[in-house]
Amino acid sequence: MKKEQIKLWVVGSIGIDDIKTLSEDRKDLLGGSLPYSTAAASFFVNTGAVGIVGDDFPPDFFKRWRHFGTDLQGVQQIEGKTFRWSGVYDENMIDRQTLKTELGVFADFKPRVPPAYKKAPFVLLGNIQPELQMHVLRQAGKTRFVALDTMNLWIDIARPALKRVIRRINLLTVNDGEARMLSGRYNMRDCATELLKMGPEYVVIKRGEHGALLFSKRGIFIAPAYPVKDVVDPTGAGDSYAGAFMGYLARHGRVNEKSMRAALLNAAVFASFGVEGFSLERFETLKESQIKRRVSEMKKMLTADF
Amino acid sequence: MKKEQIKLWVVGSIGIDDIKTLSEDRKDLLGGSLPYSTAAASFFVNTGAVGIVGDDFPPDFFKRWRHFGTDLQGVQQIEGKTFRWSGVYDENMIDRQTLKTELGVFADFKPRVPPAYKKAPFVLLGNIQPELQMHVLRQAGKTRFVALDTMNLWIDIARPALKRVIRRINLLTVNDGEARMLSGRYNMRDCATELLKMGPEYVVIKRGEHGALLFSKRGIFIAPAYPVKDVVDPTGAGDSYAGAFMGYLARHGRVNEKSMRAALLNAAVFASFGVEGFSLERFETLKESQIKRRVSEMKKMLTADF
Repeated sequence: MKKEQIKLWVVGSIGIDDIKTLSEDRKDLLGGSLPYSTAAASFFVNTGAVGIVGDDFPPDFFKRWRHFGTDLQGVQQIEGKTFRWSGVYDENMIDRQTLKTELGVFADFKPRVPPAYKKAPFVLLGNIQPELQMHVLRQAGKTRFVALDTMNLWIDIARPALKRVIRRINLLTVNDGEARMLSGRYNMRDCATELLKMGPEYVVIKRGEHGALLFSKRGIFIAPAYPVKDVVDPTGAGDSYAGAFMGYLARHGRVNEKSMRAALLNAAVFASFGVEGFSLERFETLKESQIKRRVSEMKKMLTADF
Repeated sequence: MKKEQIKLWVVGSIGIDDIKTLSEDRKDLLGGSLPYSTAAASFFVNTGAVGIVGDDFPPDFFKRWRHFGTDLQGVQQIEGKTFRWSGVYDENMIDRQTLKTELGVFADFKPRVPPAYKKAPFVLLGNIQPELQMHVLRQAGKTRFVALDTMNLWIDIARPALKRVIRRINLLTVNDGEARMLSGRYNMRDCATELLKMGPEYVVIKRGEHGALLFSKRGIFIAPAYPVKDVVDPTGAGDSYAGAFMGYLARHGRVNEKSMRAALLNAAVFASFGVEGFSLERFETLKESQIKRRVSEMKKMLTADF
């Protein structure tokens, strides 16, 4: 394979997951936000991963992850235990209970961006401590487009740091609860207006199975979700969504309303495939033709046609 | 005004509502499914209403209702009290608590379809007892398209009667919880497959602020909701949605995928206006130009554009 330039890099968590659903009970799965997001992004563009694992991280996981074409130079492996998470899903396959969170080496993660990534125009700051997101962003070269994902925990305990890093990014992605928490408003459009004032040009409010809303100064785009028939494991859906979104944009190169919308549609398709298997399993068998078919199926589902 | 033929009639409840939201407390409002649905439909087509009120029903309510052009020949007024409902909304403006339900004359409602309605090709059977829906459907002439709305109560206590009437209609509209209850399935696509087997050619699964999904043998349409900025009172949103939907179809005349999709978009627009005021208040000031503007605004919000 030709050695191509990294167009996008992502920082995030890498974990080993135990996941229980109504019908299955799976242990020692490759998990965390980073494998999901980079695997999805790698379908579109050369993608680098910045993360950390312990010496217990199975070599097979590296192999399977690299198989997507993801560059793993930015993944440090140090003595200690890999981040572990375990959870159980309700029958609705949305609500879940966390049974165990063991940070391991992730607790002292100091992300390092490899020199080879510094020319990458696109960056996705996955959901980690805002201080680390800022730390890693400072290591980036001249970027064209930076997206940031976060969660309720950081809004709660690290709001000032989070707002500092949000000031420097292009796109903020949060779910509806987080949008309300961070903006102090209730109505989604009011939330978005407040969040846009914090600095980013774009705000994506994720609503899970109901899709997302994209807000910018120029308006609103209602980004649908694909109605999945067989949800096997919803873990990582948001990360696959973000990864495919950024991967699409990075491949396209230009960021405008049109490419953003197309990126969101592709993101929905990748999230829908991702939840059809545990871990990255569905991505491992995913073919270009299946992606194309689902993208065009979604377009049909959306055509108001008049 | 020229006396035109009734193209659509609707059967449903007529009530007097007391509604409390976080910011307002309003009493003695015109409510029930029928005023909402027929007012919205009357923007599109000559619409008749089949319902019942008591002798306490304010003459002013008739006047304001007629102002939309709705034909009220099918509304019986008898001795007794009009149906009364009162409820209070949570701050999310979705969840509500019913404080009072007094059926009054609605308890013994025997709907009568006026002869002038019997040539109407479109019928909306609003959410009333399935036996009454069947009773009223038998009075209809040769119809082209019949839609039926129902609720969890009837699925629970009158399932066989409900299934009998569902066998005779063209479109079933339910929310996601009702879809699950009636089909015994969980996944929305599985639910729809089961519901389509019960007889209707179309199933619309409503998801409130998240829009709706339209299912038919030919596929799925993801019908979005308009992101409303100021929700004043969500009561009747589903009824305005259904009324505008059927009104649009009846005006268009032909029922096909294309007109269904356009009808759903117009339905979303009417639901969004409806919740911007208590009772029918927002509809009373609604201008053609505002409707057009919001329809084209929604189309822009949906354009994947690639």
